[in-house]
Amino acid sequence: METLRVALGARSYPIHIGADLLARAELYAPHLGPSVAIVTNDVVAPLYAARLRGVLERSGARVAEIVVEDGERAKSWPTLDRVIDALLAARLGRDGTLVALGGGVVGDLAGFAAAVYQRGVRFVQVPTTLLAQVDSSVGGKTAINHARGKNMIGAFHQPVAVVSDVATLDTLPERELRAGLAEVIKHGVALDASFFDWLEPNIEPLLARDRAALVHAVRRSCELKAAIVAEDERESGRRALLNLGHTFGHAIEAATGFGPWLHGEAVAAGMVMAAELSARLGLLPRADAARIASLLARAGLPTRAPAIAGSQWHSLMALDKKSAAGRVRFVLLEAMGRAKVQADVDASVVDEVIAAATA
Amino acid sequence: METLRVALGARSYPIHIGADLLARAELYAPHLGPSVAIVTNDVVAPLYAARLRGVLERSGARVAEIVVEDGERAKSWPTLDRVIDALLAARLGRDGTLVALGGGVVGDLAGFAAAVYQRGVRFVQVPTTLLAQVDSSVGGKTAINHARGKNMIGAFHQPVAVVSDVATLDTLPERELRAGLAEVIKHGVALDASFFDWLEPNIEPLLARDRAALVHAVRRSCELKAAIVAEDERESGRRALLNLGHTFGHAIEAATGFGPWLHGEAVAAGMVMAAELSARLGLLPRADAARIASLLARAGLPTRAPAIAGSQWHSLMALDKKSAAGRVRFVLLEAMGRAKVQADVDASVVDEVIAAATA
Repeated sequence: METLRVALGARSYPIHIGADLLARAELYAPHLGPSVAIVTNDVVAPLYAARLRGVLERSGARVAEIVVEDGERAKSWPTLDRVIDALLAARLGRDGTLVALGGGVVGDLAGFAAAVYQRGVRFVQVPTTLLAQVDSSVGGKTAINHARGKNMIGAFHQPVAVVSDVATLDTLPERELRAGLAEVIKHGVALDASFFDWLEPNIEPLLARDRAALVHAVRRSCELKAAIVAEDERESGRRALLNLGHTFGHAIEAATGFGPWLHGEAVAAGMVMAAELSARLGLLPRADAARIASLLARAGLPTRAPAIAGSQWHSLMALDKKSAAGRVRFVLLEAMGRAKVQADVDASVVDEVIAAATA
Repeated sequence: METLRVALGARSYPIHIGADLLARAELYAPHLGPSVAIVTNDVVAPLYAARLRGVLERSGARVAEIVVEDGERAKSWPTLDRVIDALLAARLGRDGTLVALGGGVVGDLAGFAAAVYQRGVRFVQVPTTLLAQVDSSVGGKTAINHARGKNMIGAFHQPVAVVSDVATLDTLPERELRAGLAEVIKHGVALDASFFDWLEPNIEPLLARDRAALVHAVRRSCELKAAIVAEDERESGRRALLNLGHTFGHAIEAATGFGPWLHGEAVAAGMVMAAELSARLGLLPRADAARIASLLARAGLPTRAPAIAGSQWHSLMALDKKSAAGRVRFVLLEAMGRAKVQADVDASVVDEVIAAATA
């Protein structure tokens, strides 16, 4: 087992990464109040909920189990309200603990429930998808969606601990594994060229779910993200770099109605577009843009965008949370492993990138 | 004008108190982003919204106005969702500002909207009721209600500034003025005997809306509350002292369906019960309990509880957010101006107090 610490002063917390951690009672015990609620979904529950529940009960906690539907639709007010209702019915006090067992949707939903239930209770993340292990479990971002946009209602609420058991990835569908790898690759592309160098020869072991490779990829991704979050918890500056590929990617997800494209798939195509934009602006060598597209393709990820009208691209991108004073701010690449935020991007070059990505 | 500073490190903010502050553009200007949304209700809007809007527009901001229904019912998900929807429609960015214009309900609702909209934007409080000026504008507590309990969904989200214009109290209904005085009196009873001594001869000037008396009462209340919030932002310890009268008071509000009793009225009756409990436990001299009931009566506030079944009292009090591990924690008085929290209170003495208060 490896343990990282996310340094956030009084809100610092450990991330434990390894195989078969789910049943390690000592990882949860320090964080449990007298009552605990596991929030999970109807796909993950049959696989892992009973085992986790037994582990938590051995620590002496009274454990409630709240099962929501699988999929992005759970990041909605009606589902959040059901979770809050179940927490009140279980008489979870302010000294209680929520445990999020599942992927990014469960983490975002349960984390937001923990942020607002009685103005905030502790929560532990037990991510069971690669995406959640490398991305949503670090940084404290929680949210639900609104009809007008994804993640529009949310909070920054740090977990008290994260338990990332790579053995739970054995049950992850192939397509979701690949979508998680998009975020792993993003960390190399945006922040660490040598991690990208490591990923190129290791993409096949990762796709084969080699545990040592997975532990390294999760650990390095969390380290890179944790370092940024530690210096910019509220996403005012450097943290925006983690959104490489997300401005285009969110537009793809929004235009296709949040569902047909997995988040990681949209980010992969968005990253290719951001690299292409960087190359056209003369910031990034063409060869690097090609390496990025090639690695994503080897990971089985889309490198092209779906057909979306040009005007729709622009209006969806303007809704991006990074936009300031109505201006879209793009995350661009100055070199492999070196991303930067830029606001004054010529719309006609953006149009060229969109045309090239959808031609 | 008097200005207090609530000391909360990076989240410190000023409270400006005086007459005719609503139109002082310089009090808002430092806190406005390119877009601003005024959240108010249909009673306050016709009185003050146009004037405030003009002031904000003079600062160069694009101003949207969001009007919700008057009353506690606005602290609900459907209303919050309408506010969020209007903010998105107005394209308020993360650099925008919400301005809450109204009483405690508007402040709680708009503050919670600001806490969760795009994971948090700035908000300015412009409280137009005495209750909001002395209580809900200090401390950063925001919330909406749930069918199973009041304020069960919320966040701690500090305003960036509070503008308390006592001239706006001219339009406050008499009954709400009195309900606000309940909280003013609470601050003296729980925290400052000499403020209580000042209130005894000044209760009539306050009821007559004497501006100098109001400015002093608001200022001293905010000072007392701000000092506690500064040392206990998340309500783990001393901040609970501000809940004097609230354990019984919330039970009264819940049992009567949140509406017939104003919050301050319930707190007044609850405070009399807490003083009575303190006296029966031998903590507080009987004479002090009598002074408290007498001042509340002179302020035109209820000093007795409605008829509620004994078992219902206990189950409603157990839902109180102060309860830990299922035990109700009472705020009691050791002396005038000195409150303390106590968990191990004999249920039979509580029953005697309930019987006495409702006989």
